[in-house]
Amino acid sequence: MRYEREPMPEGGVDLPRGFLAGAVRAGIRPDLDKLDVGVLYSRVPCAAAAVYTSNRVKAAPLLLCQEHLADGRAQAIIANSGCANAATGQQGLSHARRTAELVAAKLGIQPHDVLVASTGVIGTFLPMERIEDAVSCVELSAAGGADFALAIMTTDTRPKCEGGRCGHQGQEYALWAVAKGAGMIHPNMATMLCFVATDAPLAQPYLAACLREAVDVSFNMIDVDSDTSTNDTVIVLANGLAGGDLIDAGHPAAGAFLAALTDCCVGLAKAIVADAEGATKVIECAVEGAASLADARLAAREVVRSLAVKTAVYGCDPNWGRILAAVGNSGAAMIEEKTVVYLSAPENGGVCVYRHGAPLPFDEAQARACLAAREVRIRVALGLGEGAATAWGSDITEEYVRLNSAYTT
Amino acid sequence: MRYEREPMPEGGVDLPRGFLAGAVRAGIRPDLDKLDVGVLYSRVPCAAAAVYTSNRVKAAPLLLCQEHLADGRAQAIIANSGCANAATGQQGLSHARRTAELVAAKLGIQPHDVLVASTGVIGTFLPMERIEDAVSCVELSAAGGADFALAIMTTDTRPKCEGGRCGHQGQEYALWAVAKGAGMIHPNMATMLCFVATDAPLAQPYLAACLREAVDVSFNMIDVDSDTSTNDTVIVLANGLAGGDLIDAGHPAAGAFLAALTDCCVGLAKAIVADAEGATKVIECAVEGAASLADARLAAREVVRSLAVKTAVYGCDPNWGRILAAVGNSGAAMIEEKTVVYLSAPENGGVCVYRHGAPLPFDEAQARACLAAREVRIRVALGLGEGAATAWGSDITEEYVRLNSAYTT
Repeated sequence: MRYEREPMPEGGVDLPRGFLAGAVRAGIRPDLDKLDVGVLYSRVPCAAAAVYTSNRVKAAPLLLCQEHLADGRAQAIIANSGCANAATGQQGLSHARRTAELVAAKLGIQPHDVLVASTGVIGTFLPMERIEDAVSCVELSAAGGADFALAIMTTDTRPKCEGGRCGHQGQEYALWAVAKGAGMIHPNMATMLCFVATDAPLAQPYLAACLREAVDVSFNMIDVDSDTSTNDTVIVLANGLAGGDLIDAGHPAAGAFLAALTDCCVGLAKAIVADAEGATKVIECAVEGAASLADARLAAREVVRSLAVKTAVYGCDPNWGRILAAVGNSGAAMIEEKTVVYLSAPENGGVCVYRHGAPLPFDEAQARACLAAREVRIRVALGLGEGAATAWGSDITEEYVRLNSAYTT
Repeated sequence: MRYEREPMPEGGVDLPRGFLAGAVRAGIRPDLDKLDVGVLYSRVPCAAAAVYTSNRVKAAPLLLCQEHLADGRAQAIIANSGCANAATGQQGLSHARRTAELVAAKLGIQPHDVLVASTGVIGTFLPMERIEDAVSCVELSAAGGADFALAIMTTDTRPKCEGGRCGHQGQEYALWAVAKGAGMIHPNMATMLCFVATDAPLAQPYLAACLREAVDVSFNMIDVDSDTSTNDTVIVLANGLAGGDLIDAGHPAAGAFLAALTDCCVGLAKAIVADAEGATKVIECAVEGAASLADARLAAREVVRSLAVKTAVYGCDPNWGRILAAVGNSGAAMIEEKTVVYLSAPENGGVCVYRHGAPLPFDEAQARACLAAREVRIRVALGLGEGAATAWGSDITEEYVRLNSAYTT
């Protein structure tokens, strides 16, 4: 059993066996001259699972996915950027349904096996004639994954793609995963979409369990701006064309598949944070010694969420009191005297700034160097138990404000 | 029974009978040439009550206040800016205790009747020789309230002071209240301090109940940046020098006193939001028709907290989908089809942007005019019950990021 992560080559990562993709410029936002409708298709039906936003306002395409995935099976996904088709009521749901029908007719499959995803402005209707044109024009190929990744971008500055392989006794499985997201990003899914395709033969219940586990330590541990969107969706399709026995929890390759899926999701989650609107740095916060896993997750997420921490990191200001205040705010059990806070960056040894309930004298130049890194690491040891978790966030800059104060128009 | 709110005159609001105040420039932050230590004193002991931060990291002065207020009685408050005396362990607590002793010695009262409050940078120690100098130099007078308000400012651009009078059958009571706060502001107390003085004769348990109630609809309903500091404290002192019967819940003036206290707190809470770091506007969100009061509070606070909403308001962008997404995020029960969203500003009639689960066509120029107001009003009707609440937040600007990325240094 082995697992290997592929560095992203120019032009993206190859699609697994039996998957085709493609994208077109449909003009959903006529002012943006970019690919905006993508289709991903498997030659055979797939075991499929999805995880959705926790927002109570759920976009129409998401409601349709829930309906179409009731049987745990799908064969194609159509995704558009430029319009979220959210807060659009019955008409929005009809549009999503019609979109699935168009794709099904083109590919000769059942509408029920088509999933729909949208991202963009909330509260506008899909321009259906443009969607019709897009579906009729789109050409699918085994090399179309890179275009699909471009088509789902909104304020993203670059496509986000991960690939992986895992295997067992000569049987090798491929994973391909793409995501988009740069703003409205907060634990519990965000203005983000992620699609994963694999040729591994997965039993659907185990596939769904793997996806939940992978999302919990990846997309649910990132924060750009503490806002959770209405459209967040992660979908995995497993077409089984690699052959071999169905993989369920007892299969010898089960662990390797979960590891590969998790690694793809963590890679994409970090890519989203690294491409956050206006951001200059990734903040990684590792919490250890928490009273529970839940506490570790709460504390790590609050540190990377805090605007006070985000702005201090942006300014390379070793104002560690803001980190401590964020941990105190998180709801996690903590005792000041047992808490230790470190600043460290890969290139630096790391600096302990707080221990035994009191500030430690530290080398300010070294602390500033830690914060000047492209990837800033914060470590918090709570000294209470075994709970550990890591979260990732972006810093916040004037550019974030500029981008977000003039988005729709 | 009547209640009257005083417009703030030049030089602040008069202190109630028997209260004296003063402030000095102690150089706690030597780089800032401003008043930074203030003392408030009552000629006679007061019924006293306080509300503190919900952050688990609690500053030393706050721990001392909890200890000194165990008997519900106090006679003086010393407050400093420039150093929060938070995350400073046993030494920080000794410093707070020593500060109370110095004030007690000067005024000839018990250290136990002195309350201490600090605001400023977390994780630095109080410069005790400067505090000693400050206490020995400070001169108290009935006109010293305005200087006290200046001494507690950090990144505030202006002092925040409210006054009120309420009465009953010829008996008149005065209220005076000051606050500071401009950043790290989030429901459940923030980097904010508020001190209220009154000459009304309050029974301590009723005073404490009134304070909790007033704080709940004022300071606990504002948001600047979703960060809750380690030092937030609201203290009320009632010296009874107006005379008359002790006011408890059954007294005919009880309601008038609660109304006056609430009005002072709401006025100061809105003043904090209006002076938020880098902010250009106040966002008021009124939620009605929620399934419960708790739901109404959740929804109103989430709308004014959302960075997506804050940036859209800053940019006068009628991107109302962000308001709906924030309500959906808040945890409050909601049904899209029953939810109605309005944008309105005092100068404008208001614009309904979402109803019956779908966007409404609206006059974009009028919507932009609503968002261009200095005070932007958002109204959300959930159509589920009787719960109603109002929250206030600031918009977020490039200037907020600039201020917060270079604060300690």
